[in-house]
Amino acid sequence: MTVSAAGEFGLIDRITARLGAAPACLLGPGDDAAVVAAPDGRVVASTDVLVEGRHFRRDWSSAVDVGHRAAAANLADIAAMGAAPTALLVALCVPPDLELGWAEGLADGLSAEAASVGAGVVGGDVSASPTLTVAVTALGDLGGRPPVLRDGARAGDVIALAGRTGYAAAGYTVLSRGFRTPKLLVDAYRRPVVPYAAGPTAAVRGVTAMVDVSDGLLADLGHLAAASRVAIDLRRSAFDVPDQMRDAAAALGVDPYAWLLAGGDDHALAAAFPEDVPLPDGWRAVGHVVHGSGVTVDGRPFTGPAGWDHFR
Amino acid sequence: MTVSAAGEFGLIDRITARLGAAPACLLGPGDDAAVVAAPDGRVVASTDVLVEGRHFRRDWSSAVDVGHRAAAANLADIAAMGAAPTALLVALCVPPDLELGWAEGLADGLSAEAASVGAGVVGGDVSASPTLTVAVTALGDLGGRPPVLRDGARAGDVIALAGRTGYAAAGYTVLSRGFRTPKLLVDAYRRPVVPYAAGPTAAVRGVTAMVDVSDGLLADLGHLAAASRVAIDLRRSAFDVPDQMRDAAAALGVDPYAWLLAGGDDHALAAAFPEDVPLPDGWRAVGHVVHGSGVTVDGRPFTGPAGWDHFR
Repeated sequence: MTVSAAGEFGLIDRITARLGAAPACLLGPGDDAAVVAAPDGRVVASTDVLVEGRHFRRDWSSAVDVGHRAAAANLADIAAMGAAPTALLVALCVPPDLELGWAEGLADGLSAEAASVGAGVVGGDVSASPTLTVAVTALGDLGGRPPVLRDGARAGDVIALAGRTGYAAAGYTVLSRGFRTPKLLVDAYRRPVVPYAAGPTAAVRGVTAMVDVSDGLLADLGHLAAASRVAIDLRRSAFDVPDQMRDAAAALGVDPYAWLLAGGDDHALAAAFPEDVPLPDGWRAVGHVVHGSGVTVDGRPFTGPAGWDHFR
Repeated sequence: MTVSAAGEFGLIDRITARLGAAPACLLGPGDDAAVVAAPDGRVVASTDVLVEGRHFRRDWSSAVDVGHRAAAANLADIAAMGAAPTALLVALCVPPDLELGWAEGLADGLSAEAASVGAGVVGGDVSASPTLTVAVTALGDLGGRPPVLRDGARAGDVIALAGRTGYAAAGYTVLSRGFRTPKLLVDAYRRPVVPYAAGPTAAVRGVTAMVDVSDGLLADLGHLAAASRVAIDLRRSAFDVPDQMRDAAAALGVDPYAWLLAGGDDHALAAAFPEDVPLPDGWRAVGHVVHGSGVTVDGRPFTGPAGWDHFR
């Protein structure tokens, strides 16, 4: 059955029937708005949109994959503030001839990714559109802590990373060259593995700045460095090239460090830790903060591709 | 200049430069997420999406109009819960050849409509897309009151209305027949005049149920009646047909009551008041709640068009 045959309310019913409950959800879908617990007295909120053909392809990713990725992109932004995600709202624009099963798969992916951090889908809207589009808003709670911004890094801080970089970019390159393996990389592109808990953990330890790595490590640390008015130097030796990435890079004629340092969409977290703070589990040192501006690798500019601009 | 020439970050800079501050905004655009005050300890949240060709046309509405309407559709949902709007987040998908000025106008409209209720645009995302799409999420604060749901209406309650119905539908019909006047109706379609304050006011008075009229009064009261397991009977004589609407209806061969009773997009608020509660300023009685199911007008089914289904 197509979404057009199901109708607006039929589609909404089929989607909401698949959503799990969440502890912070005081009122879920069905009324004019949802009500979400915000025990801290402040709410952290972020919106990210995925557009078919630009952020995903239906022949590369299943509906469930796209749901996971749309949720992850937003939940990672909440974690990067040091907050715990509580809820998602979803605006879904679909071509009228889309199979209802695709929308249901998307709901399953969104709900499962949210559930993995104790959050849930609490509301949304659907519309017909020629372009399949998924806009997600994530909410989160700071648990009494100050939010971790981008502008607090100081010379002497250690730059540390939680999660992976380069895997999703490598998977994207593999898929765009017509391959379906290695599975490790392709799966990383389809469903990022995000270290959500590392965000609040780092916040508790007193990191001075933190960012979600969505555009690429060099680009996002560039934003952090600019906001903090400092420079960052990364240590190339801190980045291991996994075997399957090395093999794929060799086969495709790509520098694997371009993936590791400039590839986006894995949604790792990068943060600046004061020198005397021991790194918590899940974080590893990859560089340090110095006086100046810009981001370098072993003291020199990295000459690979820069971050992703959605209009170029 | 086109948005493509400005680039993703250029577009974001141009938009954020036009956004006003808001009292509840603790951290605005520029970091991974925004931080919004939620003094109640709960946050009300709603998402609505507008798609070009389906919800608006660029030859019918200016960019500023579309901004006002996108904000209003969401802010009205917050008011319908009895809450005060605090913040908007916006996902904007634009064709690469869109003029930057259009995006700036949209930002102006969103920001102005939000400012009219003391809220502000605190964050968002932009992407290129073949289809111009504006997805907005609104947040609000309940000020210590319970949210007003759809399911509390009881037989004997008075159904009251705040704001206008039928104006936007009449304006849409006028525009779709190729006319540009009467201005009263066309302007109502372009920029709804929403009685935001009437929502919290009604909540304080103890309304048993409330709903935003976005699909049409009969359709939205139908949702309220179904959720409350009651019937609603409207009084046709409670609805005045304004002169300009009467003239337009006569000229176009339309029943003006079809606009008044079934037209959406004015974002009036409809609520069920206990019989003994005096109606506050801005609210007028239009019917009452009885045992049974469904919505009638003077005891009979209304035979005009039903509400709007985005997939039909």
